[in-house]
Amino acid sequence: MKIALAQNNYHVGNIEANTNKINEQIIKAKKHNADLVIFSELAICGYPPLDLLEQKSFIEKSEKAINNILMHVDNIAVIVGAPSINADPEGKKLYNSAYVLQNGQIKKIIHKTLLPTYDIFDEYRYFEPNETPEIVEINGHTIALTICEDLWDEQPVDQPFAQTRLYKKAPMKKLVGNNPDLIINIAASPFSYNQEQKRKGILKRNAHDYQIPLIYINQVGANTDLIFDGASKVLNTNGEIVKQLKRFEEDFEIISLEKIEKQGPTTHNTSDSRIKQIHDAVVLGIRDYFEKSGFEKALLGLSGGIDSALVAALACEALGAKNVHGLLMPSEFSSEHSVSDAEKLAINLGMPHQTLAIKDVYNAINKSLSPVFPNNTFDVTEENIQARIRGLLLMAYSNKHGNMLLNTSNKSEAAVGYSTLYGDTNGGLSPIGDVYKTDVYAVSRYINRNEEIIPSGSIEKPPSAELRPEQQDSDNLPDYDILDRMLFEFIERKQSVDDLIGMGFKKSDVLKVTHLVNIHEYKRYQFPPILRVSSKAFGMGRRYPVVAKF
Amino acid sequence: MKIALAQNNYHVGNIEANTNKINEQIIKAKKHNADLVIFSELAICGYPPLDLLEQKSFIEKSEKAINNILMHVDNIAVIVGAPSINADPEGKKLYNSAYVLQNGQIKKIIHKTLLPTYDIFDEYRYFEPNETPEIVEINGHTIALTICEDLWDEQPVDQPFAQTRLYKKAPMKKLVGNNPDLIINIAASPFSYNQEQKRKGILKRNAHDYQIPLIYINQVGANTDLIFDGASKVLNTNGEIVKQLKRFEEDFEIISLEKIEKQGPTTHNTSDSRIKQIHDAVVLGIRDYFEKSGFEKALLGLSGGIDSALVAALACEALGAKNVHGLLMPSEFSSEHSVSDAEKLAINLGMPHQTLAIKDVYNAINKSLSPVFPNNTFDVTEENIQARIRGLLLMAYSNKHGNMLLNTSNKSEAAVGYSTLYGDTNGGLSPIGDVYKTDVYAVSRYINRNEEIIPSGSIEKPPSAELRPEQQDSDNLPDYDILDRMLFEFIERKQSVDDLIGMGFKKSDVLKVTHLVNIHEYKRYQFPPILRVSSKAFGMGRRYPVVAKF
Repeated sequence: MKIALAQNNYHVGNIEANTNKINEQIIKAKKHNADLVIFSELAICGYPPLDLLEQKSFIEKSEKAINNILMHVDNIAVIVGAPSINADPEGKKLYNSAYVLQNGQIKKIIHKTLLPTYDIFDEYRYFEPNETPEIVEINGHTIALTICEDLWDEQPVDQPFAQTRLYKKAPMKKLVGNNPDLIINIAASPFSYNQEQKRKGILKRNAHDYQIPLIYINQVGANTDLIFDGASKVLNTNGEIVKQLKRFEEDFEIISLEKIEKQGPTTHNTSDSRIKQIHDAVVLGIRDYFEKSGFEKALLGLSGGIDSALVAALACEALGAKNVHGLLMPSEFSSEHSVSDAEKLAINLGMPHQTLAIKDVYNAINKSLSPVFPNNTFDVTEENIQARIRGLLLMAYSNKHGNMLLNTSNKSEAAVGYSTLYGDTNGGLSPIGDVYKTDVYAVSRYINRNEEIIPSGSIEKPPSAELRPEQQDSDNLPDYDILDRMLFEFIERKQSVDDLIGMGFKKSDVLKVTHLVNIHEYKRYQFPPILRVSSKAFGMGRRYPVVAKF
Repeated sequence: MKIALAQNNYHVGNIEANTNKINEQIIKAKKHNADLVIFSELAICGYPPLDLLEQKSFIEKSEKAINNILMHVDNIAVIVGAPSINADPEGKKLYNSAYVLQNGQIKKIIHKTLLPTYDIFDEYRYFEPNETPEIVEINGHTIALTICEDLWDEQPVDQPFAQTRLYKKAPMKKLVGNNPDLIINIAASPFSYNQEQKRKGILKRNAHDYQIPLIYINQVGANTDLIFDGASKVLNTNGEIVKQLKRFEEDFEIISLEKIEKQGPTTHNTSDSRIKQIHDAVVLGIRDYFEKSGFEKALLGLSGGIDSALVAALACEALGAKNVHGLLMPSEFSSEHSVSDAEKLAINLGMPHQTLAIKDVYNAINKSLSPVFPNNTFDVTEENIQARIRGLLLMAYSNKHGNMLLNTSNKSEAAVGYSTLYGDTNGGLSPIGDVYKTDVYAVSRYINRNEEIIPSGSIEKPPSAELRPEQQDSDNLPDYDILDRMLFEFIERKQSVDDLIGMGFKKSDVLKVTHLVNIHEYKRYQFPPILRVSSKAFGMGRRYPVVAKF
């Protein structure tokens, strides 16, 4: 049996465009004489559709799309993910389903059993879990058709307090009783830099333990904050990956079911460094955010610092340098180096840039505030005013010229609240808000791997917000190598204050840093969407009460 | 059996304060010779604890709190809600539990069966559903002890496409087999203006259909965006409410189980008008947000319009007029009436207020932008600049003096994106972001029920952002009575474009308004927390993809 693997970039909610893409690939698969073509989870509507699933018209449109696809389904079978209505008046309204189409008809609809409802996943919000896993027959082959989490009955966890078996069921344990020839898993498994390794472990274990070859089709492309990395795979019963599709790109491959077992592990490189993964993911994330929201041009403030330099470089890769506009807005506290580094960066990247003065605006604001600020002192208020003037000028440019503003905050800053709300937190997207400062340096060095793009001055100078004389980040915070390790243990691994002290971090640092993280929930509540590259990003995957005391 | 009903205001995460409150009430109940005292769902940690539940130290602290409470449990039984650990290695880590404490010991832990996972609820994110509902014996009485949603196996829904039976189980149907004398339901049921009516229906149906008296204990007080209205109840087997505790306030009552059946319906007023409910809820929401986040003083911009006038009046009720500071920042487009109405309001309320000039700042900004705005045209950019100058000045005041800025957007504006991001969307809390404009007028009239507090000028003049000459909201939008009805059907009831046209709304209005709602998800993503007063508020209860096309 010839099987086509269609790894596509779907746009959430854009059922028409997604359906067209699916139809094109069915036609292509037929040209290659494929017997079956497989698309990813919820391909019709894109993943994650969120509350669009609660709209009747959305479900109707998705059902119509299936009918439209059926017109192309003659000499080929198709497996495609879409929501389906639960006919039972009890339970959730919908199932997360895999439609099996053949001979112009819906042959079978298989429902997802295990519904991830943790971190960024909310599937039980919408879907009823399937109670009775079933096999599917296609062209004489018995297939265990599963949907993403269905194979994740046991999973590695990042947090010591989390359960490794989140469900009381394991669909494959039932399905294996029917002696399937093949496991198919259609997925929408979002990227994080440690996800691919986990995924490989899960897929290898299933293929090997059940002694059944396995085909895994993942979504690719970004929808808002979530990046999907593709890397669809075919595994033999040794648990070896015999074929892997591209990462971070659409891809299409034809394989022969009968040949899977005869193949050894692919020589294709299937593991990139963490830093390259982050780099590739963020570039895709920026590109898709702009494309899917109808923007071509970006804008950002260039301070001469490492964060804005990295975001500029990534945006130039994603959108083309001519579409990324930089504004330099130095203040009296900006060093000469900062200005020259920012200019050098823009020239290296070939991006348009201009300089705006903020001093007169700053003075006018101080004058306006004088009736309510009688003492004329300089404190954090005035630091924030500078950041907010920059935010205001950037938004004015954005409004006038239609460039979307990019936020340049990194994860370390977002964690400890080291930012000015409505100032440098502004932006339509936060590309590196899930990248710790130490990784900001590492990704910057990766960008400079062949030539100096990000000026060495930006990489080497001590980090500073430059909002008051001689300011350095390390005035208030531990050095970033310590801070980032502590934040990782606190945020990604949910270790407690006592755990952190037990790990050897200085008690005063631990108390200060965890307190800063806890009290700045209100700032992160108003952050732009942050591209998720870790297993625990700020945003929808991390939900803390704003007024909590703990 | 004498039963004490303890309706408390808990602070999420503040286990120590919550435990102290619980212990005080146990002591009080003992003084009244109560045999049993009942606290609400997750009382130990406050509702909703969100991802704090994923921290081991949080669960350990909660377990220690139970041990602390046990020291007070001698001649009295206690029912109190808290998380408990699932000992099974399969399934979610925790249960949402009701601890039954007696004779210094944990007598039983009952787990919640039906886990709401929709709108603002995410309980399956954290909790394993109970499989085996059990009864509890206390002092010879057989009690069906249920937790909130456990009685909501069948529920009224606002949206025609939603299911009325979200679960395949109904705990009471099992429990009734043990012939309980009493149903106890401990709850954390958030307020919306139509929730109390739904709740009464559910409670009446359970008490009446099973012919068992029912005691319902709800949380009171607000945690971030969610307001809990209390209104705990006792019902007889006719389904009549024989006792109701206060709404929007802490309360404590002692009842006799044996007397429930002898009592007729309470004469206590149990139904307020929708507008009064919204008013009371928002006042409580503001007060608790400030108190629980450690702020005393508020700040807002007074434009002379109805929205800022209403927020000022509500904030003065919540915090005291001396703690609410108003800044007037008129521009050249502000009418004379606007300034005089804003001043009149501040005087009527007795709140401090000052006036700041924005013209010089505006000119300085335009000058700063001149290198990148060569044509010097006036468009929406310049409108936004004015709004952002005001936002900047307000935040500077907030930073310098420690007043938390209140956002003054209403739900109609938030829906259609009629606001300036980082301008009038600024604030730590949005008190009326879930109140449609027509209800803003109605609540304002309610505030003026005895005397004119909000100037009639603010109520009667045509709504305008006053960001360009002669601007009126109706230039771009249908009149608010039409707009709000349409938005309600689209947002709360999830009706489609075709449904709306079928209901008689003008097609061009429907297309324009639904498009505006859909494209402004990015603005709402960065909104402050919005106090929830309806069944579908913007915020955590409504999750739409930012880059979706639909």
